Amino acid sequence: MDSTRYTRGQEALSRIHGHIGQGVMDALGDIAPDFAQFIIEFPYGDIYSREGLSPKERQIATIAALVTLGNAPTELKAHIQGALNVGCSQAEVVEVIMQMAVYAGFPAAVNALLVAKDVFTELNAQT
Amino acid sequence: MDSTRYTRGQEALSRIHGHIGQGVMDALGDIAPDFAQFIIEFPYGDIYSREGLSPKERQIATIAALVTLGNAPTELKAHIQGALNVGCSQAEVVEVIMQMAVYAGFPAAVNALLVAKDVFTELNAQT
Amino acid sequence: MDSTRYTRGQEALSRIHGHIGQGVMDALGDIAPDFAQFIIEFPYGDIYSREGLSPKERQIATIAALVTLGNAPTELKAHIQGALNVGCSQAEVVEVIMQMAVYAGFPAAVNALLVAKDVFTELNAQT
Amino acid sequence: MDSTRYTRGQEALSRIHGHIGQGVMDALGDIAPDFAQFIIEFPYGDIYSREGLSPKERQIATIAALVTLGNAPTELKAHIQGALNVGCSQAEVVEVIMQMAVYAGFPAAVNALLVAKDVFTELNAQT
Amino acid sequence: MDSTRYTRGQEALSRIHGHIGQGVMDALGDIAPDFAQFIIEFPYGDIYSREGLSPKERQIATIAALVTLGNAPTELKAHIQGALNVGCSQAEVVEVIMQMAVYAGFPAAVNALLVAKDVFTELNAQT
Amino acid sequence: MDSTRYTRGQEALSRIHGHIGQGVMDALGDIAPDFAQFIIEFPYGDIYSREGLSPKERQIATIAALVTLGNAPTELKAHIQGALNVGCSQAEVVEVIMQMAVYAGFPAAVNALLVAKDVFTELNAQT
Repeated sequence: MDSTRYTRGQEALSRIHGHIGQGVMDALGDIAPDFAQFIIEFPYGDIYSREGLSPKERQIATIAALVTLGNAPTELKAHIQGALNVGCSQAEVVEVIMQMAVYAGFPAAVNALLVAKDVFTELNAQT
Repeated sequence: MDSTRYTRGQEALSRIHGHIGQGVMDALGDIAPDFAQFIIEFPYGDIYSREGLSPKERQIATIAALVTLGNAPTELKAHIQGALNVGCSQAEVVEVIMQMAVYAGFPAAVNALLVAKDVFTELNAQT
Repeated sequence: MDSTRYTRGQEALSRIHGHIGQGVMDALGDIAPDFAQFIIEFPYGDIYSREGLSPKERQIATIAALVTLGNAPTELKAHIQGALNVGCSQAEVVEVIMQMAVYAGFPAAVNALLVAKDVFTELNAQT
Repeated sequence: MDSTRYTRGQEALSRIHGHIGQGVMDALGDIAPDFAQFIIEFPYGDIYSREGLSPKERQIATIAALVTLGNAPTELKAHIQGALNVGCSQAEVVEVIMQMAVYAGFPAAVNALLVAKDVFTELNAQT
Repeated sequence: MDSTRYTRGQEALSRIHGHIGQGVMDALGDIAPDFAQFIIEFPYGDIYSREGLSPKERQIATIAALVTLGNAPTELKAHIQGALNVGCSQAEVVEVIMQMAVYAGFPAAVNALLVAKDVFTELNAQT
Repeated sequence: MDSTRYTRGQEALSRIHGHIGQGVMDALGDIAPDFAQFIIEFPYGDIYSREGLSPKERQIATIAALVTLGNAPTELKAHIQGALNVGCSQAEVVEVIMQMAVYAGFPAAVNALLVAKDVFTELNAQT
C-alpha cells in the first residue's frame, strides 16, 4: 500500500466530506475493501489533493458532473455538503445546478435542486 | 422579442466565445431561427448573464458537464476557448478535465484532453 | 419579467399537467425561485406553446426522451399524466414506451412501463 | 427463421428508409448476419409494424430518442429521412429537435439540428 | 406466436433468474403483455440462448452494461443473482463492478457495489 | 512515483494493447503527463493487473461498457484489439456487442459492430 497517497487521500476525504466520508468507506469495505482503498488513493489522494484548482472550483466541477450524470443522488448530496464545507455558499450551489439545465436538461436540474433543498433543510435544522 | 434578454445574451455570447459564437448562431439560423434566438436568450441571456458565480466558475462547470456528456466535442471546444477567454489558464482547463475521470470515466477524460490539446495547439500556432 | 412568456407558460403548464404542475413550481420556488420562473417561461412558454406539433405529438416526443434518459421517473410520471390530459390513450403511451426498447434498451422500457402502470392504476382508482 | 416477422420487418424497413435501409443491413451482414436479421425482425417486424401509433408518431418518438442519446448521428439522419418519408414535414422535424433542448440539453439539440440541416440540404439538392 | 423462440426464451429466463424472472414478466403482463412476450423472445430467446459465449461470460457483459447505465438497479440486482446462478462467484461479480469505475466513473461503481452487497446479504441470510 | 504500480501497469498496457497503448500515452503526455501516468497506474496497474477475472473476461466487460457508453469509438477499437490480443475470437467480440442491443439499444450495437468490422478488416489485411 502506498501510504503517502492513502494518507493524503484520507485528509482530502475528511476535508471535503467530514466524518460522513469515512462511513461510506466503511460500508464499501465490507464488500470490496480494495475498492474502498482505491477511492481514497485515486480520487482523493491523486486528484482532489492536487493544486491547480481551488477546493471550491473542484466542488463546482464535481457538482456539475453529478447533476449531468443524473443517476447518483447520494454522491450529489455528499458533494453539495462538501462544497459548503470548502467555502461555497448555498446560493452558489444553486447557481451551478441551474446552469446545468442548459447542458443536461431541465429534469436533471430540477431533481438536483430538490437534492440540494434536502441538504440545506437538514443543515438549517441542525443550527 | 424580449430585447433586454436578447441584448444581454448577445453580450454574454460575445464575451465568452468572441466572434465564433455568432458563426454558430448563423449556421443554426438557416434551419431554426427561433432556436438560434432561444440560445441567445436562455443560456446566454438568462443563465450566463447572472451574477452569483464568476465567469471562470461558470466555464469550469460547463466544461465539467460537457466532458461528462462525452458526445458534444464541438461545444466542448467552444467552451474550452471560452474558459481561456474569461481567465482560466490552460493548466486549469486540464485540471477540470482530469477530475472528470472520477465521475465520467477515463475515456471521457482522455477524449476531452485531446480536444483541449487541439484548442491549445491552434492558439499557440496563432501567436 | 416577461409577462407574455410567463402567462403563456402558465397556461401550457396547466393544460398539460393540471394543478400538479403548480405544486412542483412551488417546491422549487423555495430554493430557486428564478429557476421556477425559467421553467414556466422557457419549456412551457417558449416550447410547449408553439404551434407546429400537436399537443399529443409533443407529449409523445417528451415521453420518448424521458424513457431514454432513464433517470427522471418523477418527470416521466408527470408527462404520462400530461399525455393522457392532452388526448393520448393509455395504449398509445404504452406503444411509445415499448418502442424505446429499440433505442434505449430493455431496462429503460421496462422501468418506464412500471411507472406508466402506477399512473394508470392511480387514475383507475379515482374513477 | 420466422418468415412472417422477417417479411413484415422488410416491408416496414423499406417503407421508412427506402433502399438505404437495405444498404445498412448489407454492411452489417458481413460481420453479423444474425444481427442484421434480428434488426429486421424485432425493431421493424415486431415494433414498427404494430398499429397503435401512426407511422408519423413513431418517427417523432424515435427522433426524440436519438436526439436524447446524442451519440448516433447516422441513425438520427436515417430516421429524419424516415420521418419525411412517412409524412412529417421538415418544420415538424425541427420542432421535435428544438423540444429536446428541454430534456437532453442544448448541445444535443444543436447537433441534431445540424444533422437535420444536412438531410434537408441533400434533399433540396436532389430536386 | 413463435413457439420455438418463446420456449427457448422461457428456458433461458428460468436458467438465469429462477422463478423471479417470471414474476417480472407477470407484472409487465398486466400493462403490456406483448412486451412481456418480446422480452422472453428477443433478449432471452434470441440472445441469451445463443452459443458463442458461456453463460458466465454473458452475465459479465450484462453486469458491465448495467453498471455503466447506472439507472437500472432492479435489473442489476436481477443479473447479479443471475451471474451467481450460472456460476460466477461473488468475488468475480465484485471484480467486474470495480473495473467499471474506469469506464463509467466511481459513483456508478460504488452504487453497483452497494446493490451487490444487498444481493449477497440476502443470499447469506437464506443459508 | 509508485514504481511498482507503474511498472505493473505498463506490463498490463503492453499485454492488452501492444505498442499502440504507448502511442496514446505519448499523445496525452504532451498535454497532461500526470494523467498519462494515472492511466498506467490506476486502470492498468490497479485494475487490469488484478487476479479474480481472466484477461478475456476483463475485455468482455470493457467492451460491454464501451458499447454502452456509445461515445468512445477510439477506446472501443483499442479494446476490441485488446480482446483479440488476450484470446477472444472475433466471433466472441461480435457476440458481446450483439448482446448490448438489449441494454444499450440497437444503435449502440450497430455502431459498435461497424467499429469491430473496421478492426477485423485491418487485421485481415495485415495477414
